[in-house]
Amino acid sequence: MISKATVKWIRSLENKKGRETTGQFLAEGHKVVSDLLPLLECQLLVATNAWLQTYKPRIKGEIIETDQATLDRISLLKNPQQVLAVFKQPNSLVSPEDVQGQLCLALDTIQDPGNLGTILRIADWFGIHYLICSPDTVDAYNPKVVQATMGAIGRVNVVYTPLETFLPATGLPIFGTFLEGTPIHQADLPAAGIVVLGNEGNGISKPIADLVQGKLYIPDYPAGQTGSESLNVAVATAIVCHEFRRRLQG
Amino acid sequence: MISKATVKWIRSLENKKGRETTGQFLAEGHKVVSDLLPLLECQLLVATNAWLQTYKPRIKGEIIETDQATLDRISLLKNPQQVLAVFKQPNSLVSPEDVQGQLCLALDTIQDPGNLGTILRIADWFGIHYLICSPDTVDAYNPKVVQATMGAIGRVNVVYTPLETFLPATGLPIFGTFLEGTPIHQADLPAAGIVVLGNEGNGISKPIADLVQGKLYIPDYPAGQTGSESLNVAVATAIVCHEFRRRLQG
Repeated sequence: MISKATVKWIRSLENKKGRETTGQFLAEGHKVVSDLLPLLECQLLVATNAWLQTYKPRIKGEIIETDQATLDRISLLKNPQQVLAVFKQPNSLVSPEDVQGQLCLALDTIQDPGNLGTILRIADWFGIHYLICSPDTVDAYNPKVVQATMGAIGRVNVVYTPLETFLPATGLPIFGTFLEGTPIHQADLPAAGIVVLGNEGNGISKPIADLVQGKLYIPDYPAGQTGSESLNVAVATAIVCHEFRRRLQG
Repeated sequence: MISKATVKWIRSLENKKGRETTGQFLAEGHKVVSDLLPLLECQLLVATNAWLQTYKPRIKGEIIETDQATLDRISLLKNPQQVLAVFKQPNSLVSPEDVQGQLCLALDTIQDPGNLGTILRIADWFGIHYLICSPDTVDAYNPKVVQATMGAIGRVNVVYTPLETFLPATGLPIFGTFLEGTPIHQADLPAAGIVVLGNEGNGISKPIADLVQGKLYIPDYPAGQTGSESLNVAVATAIVCHEFRRRLQG
């Protein structure tokens, strides 16, 4: 049996305000929930008897057994699943010292939850531990982002802080993709640095672009002859991360 | 004034059956419509007076001026736009001779319209002219794909044909990504070949995997030590295309 108050609590996590007030977020479905259970503190788990019998979760918070019809009613998904869970958002502070010697991504006003989710998965694949987001970047604990990350949100630190002060304070070299940049496969790329990813429509904003020392270009083919104007930001992120990491792998 | 029959016609293009029967598809919004107008035959254009006055389109088919309220009613989008248009689907036949000397992508049961749209944009950026799709791959003229392609669907040929007969008939070397493959940045990659992209959940199917001569791997970092299980298929496509093309660019 699930109380009205609990349903209201879960539903409040659909909105940024509810997530900020509680410091929690919602994950749904077996894959996402089971990926996050060993990584983050679970404060509530709601599931069918069948799911609980099969997976026997041990968590710090409350476990509520309910039927599928009730889960269907609570779920924010189009296709509700057998399980949903409320997790505590991990500590999201970062100091310039924390990122020394590392490759990081900085997100300058990324708006699309699907893009942020995909970028989180890319960061996870390439062993990138910090995603530094401008305060107006979409919330990483938005349910759409959580569902798209495949557990990456439990392994990659996502922090929101003004880029124009944080990036220079790290002392790391700052990179970004620009049409007039050096073809990335020919560029000298260090092991540590920050790659800035710009807004879907407007690219990297002027104050942040002014901080970029390494302007890179992902070459189209044949160069300058395609009708295409741009690559999706998550797609560009993947190619840039691969280029940085392959230099370290011989 | 727009007739009930015309509205019914436009709406029928939401479904694969309607698109197959008519050989047409629907595009919405200024960006997509104006990208496609110079590339494909437009058979109907519905727009507000303001849009028509600004852009003065010349098309073979009928132009209907209407008000925003009517467009809002007809539109398949959450945020209806000032213009929508019905285009003729381009000829979608391909012979093994057509692809000689080229780099092509083969899609083995790609299901997500967003992924197909992103892959189309990637193909466009990298000057890839043919997307060879298994018959059960999502329809490229699905409105969600069209909206995601940013005009690429007018420049890249998308053909549906059984991969198990078409791929060997080309005589081109066949590549795919596999966990046991060669790290892609160290692999010998030719200028021409076919890269197979597998289903989102199941990867490349057994009969098609058996055709692959070049097994490639996109290295995670540090190798084998990330918690991440996989990259999104469109993200993997981008890295593979970049690796093939950079070999041709010095």
